[in-house]
Amino acid sequence: MGFDNRIRVVPLGGLEQIGMNITAFCYGESIIVVDCGLAFPEDDMLGIDLVIPDISFLKEHASMVKGFFITHGHEDHIGALPYVLRDLPVPVYGTRLTLAIIRNKLEEYKMAEDIPLQVVNYGDVVECEDLSVEFIRTNHSVADAAALAISSAAGTIIHTGDFKVDYTPVYGEPIDLQRFAELGKQGVLALMCDSTNAMKPGNTMSERTVGKTLDSIFAENGNRRIIVATFASNVDRVQQIINSAEKYGRKVAIEGRSMVSIVGTAQELGYIRIPENLMIPIEEIKNYPDDKLALIMTGSQGEPMAALSRIAANSHKRVSIMPGDVVIISSTPIPGNEKAVSKLINELSMLGANVIFQDTHVSGHANQEEIKLLYCLTKPKYSIPIHGEYRHRIAQKDIAVNLGMPKDNVIILKSGDMLDIGEDGAKLAGSVPAHGIMVDGLGVGDVGNAVIRDRQYLSVNGIVIVSVGIDAAVGEIVSGPDIVTRGFVYVKESEELLELARDVVKETLDRFSGADYLDYGRIKSVIKQNLGDFFWKTMKRSPMILPVIIEWNA
Amino acid sequence: MGFDNRIRVVPLGGLEQIGMNITAFCYGESIIVVDCGLAFPEDDMLGIDLVIPDISFLKEHASMVKGFFITHGHEDHIGALPYVLRDLPVPVYGTRLTLAIIRNKLEEYKMAEDIPLQVVNYGDVVECEDLSVEFIRTNHSVADAAALAISSAAGTIIHTGDFKVDYTPVYGEPIDLQRFAELGKQGVLALMCDSTNAMKPGNTMSERTVGKTLDSIFAENGNRRIIVATFASNVDRVQQIINSAEKYGRKVAIEGRSMVSIVGTAQELGYIRIPENLMIPIEEIKNYPDDKLALIMTGSQGEPMAALSRIAANSHKRVSIMPGDVVIISSTPIPGNEKAVSKLINELSMLGANVIFQDTHVSGHANQEEIKLLYCLTKPKYSIPIHGEYRHRIAQKDIAVNLGMPKDNVIILKSGDMLDIGEDGAKLAGSVPAHGIMVDGLGVGDVGNAVIRDRQYLSVNGIVIVSVGIDAAVGEIVSGPDIVTRGFVYVKESEELLELARDVVKETLDRFSGADYLDYGRIKSVIKQNLGDFFWKTMKRSPMILPVIIEWNA
Repeated sequence: MGFDNRIRVVPLGGLEQIGMNITAFCYGESIIVVDCGLAFPEDDMLGIDLVIPDISFLKEHASMVKGFFITHGHEDHIGALPYVLRDLPVPVYGTRLTLAIIRNKLEEYKMAEDIPLQVVNYGDVVECEDLSVEFIRTNHSVADAAALAISSAAGTIIHTGDFKVDYTPVYGEPIDLQRFAELGKQGVLALMCDSTNAMKPGNTMSERTVGKTLDSIFAENGNRRIIVATFASNVDRVQQIINSAEKYGRKVAIEGRSMVSIVGTAQELGYIRIPENLMIPIEEIKNYPDDKLALIMTGSQGEPMAALSRIAANSHKRVSIMPGDVVIISSTPIPGNEKAVSKLINELSMLGANVIFQDTHVSGHANQEEIKLLYCLTKPKYSIPIHGEYRHRIAQKDIAVNLGMPKDNVIILKSGDMLDIGEDGAKLAGSVPAHGIMVDGLGVGDVGNAVIRDRQYLSVNGIVIVSVGIDAAVGEIVSGPDIVTRGFVYVKESEELLELARDVVKETLDRFSGADYLDYGRIKSVIKQNLGDFFWKTMKRSPMILPVIIEWNA
Repeated sequence: MGFDNRIRVVPLGGLEQIGMNITAFCYGESIIVVDCGLAFPEDDMLGIDLVIPDISFLKEHASMVKGFFITHGHEDHIGALPYVLRDLPVPVYGTRLTLAIIRNKLEEYKMAEDIPLQVVNYGDVVECEDLSVEFIRTNHSVADAAALAISSAAGTIIHTGDFKVDYTPVYGEPIDLQRFAELGKQGVLALMCDSTNAMKPGNTMSERTVGKTLDSIFAENGNRRIIVATFASNVDRVQQIINSAEKYGRKVAIEGRSMVSIVGTAQELGYIRIPENLMIPIEEIKNYPDDKLALIMTGSQGEPMAALSRIAANSHKRVSIMPGDVVIISSTPIPGNEKAVSKLINELSMLGANVIFQDTHVSGHANQEEIKLLYCLTKPKYSIPIHGEYRHRIAQKDIAVNLGMPKDNVIILKSGDMLDIGEDGAKLAGSVPAHGIMVDGLGVGDVGNAVIRDRQYLSVNGIVIVSVGIDAAVGEIVSGPDIVTRGFVYVKESEELLELARDVVKETLDRFSGADYLDYGRIKSVIKQNLGDFFWKTMKRSPMILPVIIEWNA
């Protein structure tokens, strides 16, 4: 596919939304795919559970697809795998923890047996005929994150995944800056770099700084119960909470399904060190005094079904807030969750908790100085900013240009763009489908825009169902009209209104006669029109009106 | 009402939500009400336009209510007046600009003739039999804001309204600190102080600092068109934009209904100074070069129908973004609007605009140091924190306690609480209804929780309507079952599914016979059950199922 001297880069998602990261790299007869994430539904995608990428481009070239290469184990980079692998059962490559998280996920979908999962170590190169992929150590808010160096005869592209520079990570080593420099020396065709924090000056703080803050909170609250909520996948954060608990002689209980699962996996693989006898089952917390307990749980984003939210709403089976409890919310609200987190804090405060949410989180993404560092190490010919809204990617463009890159060498792509890029130039070569596919329950793609529009309409207006029985033989009304409503008005207090509405329909029907009664399309449309006018005039509302005609065939 | 030596304070809203500020003060045979605001609907109040306070407490004592005393002209303090004054047509007191804004609003509702509007100057005292109300100058993000000193034989309560301390306001004078001090010297029973920024350290910046930033943006972008979006009611902000435009030789056009209306009113009353020949109608901007134009408009919160959002979506009749346009978003997202503002910035950036949104706004609310200043000037016996979520009011409590107020003298109320307070003590004396009343179109209160729950259910699940015709005489199905869906699945691609669903209903009905067919309640409930099971098993979804039975009476 493409030219001898150019590699084709095809982002199938991730550029117009947060999440749904997936990018194909095509050269010769080979395609490799970096990441396969889901997106959480936008506010207006009512009833949708999640959104997955459209992989029709990959399916068209299925025989060329060598595998998925995963940068790290977050949902926005792995969440669509169970759906996509069903249609495209190719090997998945990743570091050890990343693959363990993926394996857990595939097991839930009963697919773990069907897919080859290939563990790759940092520094290893996976050869895929015309392409090769090297995994390079980075730092992020989940352990075992990797950048990928994708090489072909057309040159090397570095894809950072989500990353930050942490000189003092909690687990493992700092990002492999030497390897980035070495690749830079050898020549990098393009850098595809995380833009999430490209508007933020300076450097991101080390994960270790959070540990220090947590430690001082433990020190200052020696006689109170301490509850910490954070992201399940932030194993290093959990490690630091455990360290503080151990230091101050507290037992630790873990709550929340995903937290229990990931901590279990991380412990098995040695990514987290838990002293013996430190952990207790959540059922046993009642056997320990407050000052001997630390609870770690999910719900730091105010997700309604997560552990901390249920505790705040007083609907958790085993944990109730007691006045004086210290609750640490160890995360920053993801855009869109601000109000849910405020609600959480208010509810916990009303129950008497002392809620701490400042300085107990650091970002997992590179700020401006770290982005500059990566550019200066790799000295790419081209830049293709990724991971971030348009404004974030434009901010990275500004950084690159300020570092001396020609403006035209920074390429702002849209999802679905096919970019052919090589030492001799870069050029858009058309586009492929890249709209997200909505998943609702078991249905993948059966809820489209028309259904969503109906849900949106129903959600603000409700529905009025008008039923009429018509005798097809003689053309006359034999039953009804009857009116049923849902989500429109409180029926018991609106009997008069609904009686008037029935009159409107009756009058409408009275204007028909004989054979006219058999033009059901016309009857329905006139009922809709007249009843719609009536509701708008009397109450300035527009319920969905659905006439149902039942035909009587004697 | 109440005791000789205590005044009764009854907040009817504003304490559990942002907005809907309204508080009654009762003494002897007199009631005065401070503010009468609306709340914007919470995310889960689907289809609701706005929320107004329940004033049944006031209506019960209607003959005692002397009037509404309004602190300033923002919707969360005046927005419910058109609804409430219908039931309780009493005089409204306020400063000049505040009342002009209220008059505009009442004119929209064709009520301006019916309600006495009494302009009060700073320092004036309105006597209401057993109570008196003094208006005290403050600063806020709308001109003519006032604090109120409410006095009775039981003592003086100071209600700050929304306020900040601005030593260098754009229009008018700084807050009347001397009068607060004088009242403090004479003895203040209780301070009801704005808590909005009680978690923020330091002092709020002066509105004038925004003017300086705007001025430097104008200076740096001499050859580009400049568009500024801000709150319509922030007349001082508009003044400063006009000042910069004048200084740099630009004409000014104003866009957005509320912006045009408030600027007009402010200009009429002299709250804004617009040089002659500076303003041009928006229709004429095409006659001027970019570098001679500044546009001021609504939409800084990403409100979908406001001017800037329509421009960003490329659906504005008269203004299109041109690459290089400088767009200043001169506000901070109100909690809940963060994503809408991000979307706005992304859309404008994609059109080529240079979007500036940092350092171009200051808050209108007092930070911690200003709150401390007010406590030290007024030295109240009690504190009743108002205006803010629970966590903000608790933060003010911490401030008061740190300043030496006994913990028990800081009273955290809930909306609806009746507090009897005097020099000899403070005590809750029960509570009155204070839930918000939802307004949908012309309907006030006819959409209650049951209707909202139906809307929520419909919004994520859609609806399946099953219609059946039954012959009542012989007890048999004569028509159907037919199935219609809305917001459930894309019908054209789900014909097979819906055919199977019809089979499920048929089989269900087949199990009935004869007179059983006339037990419509049972038929409906079994259809719901079986069809619900079917959809859950096949697709893990739970549409609302609505069986409609049409009875044929031969």
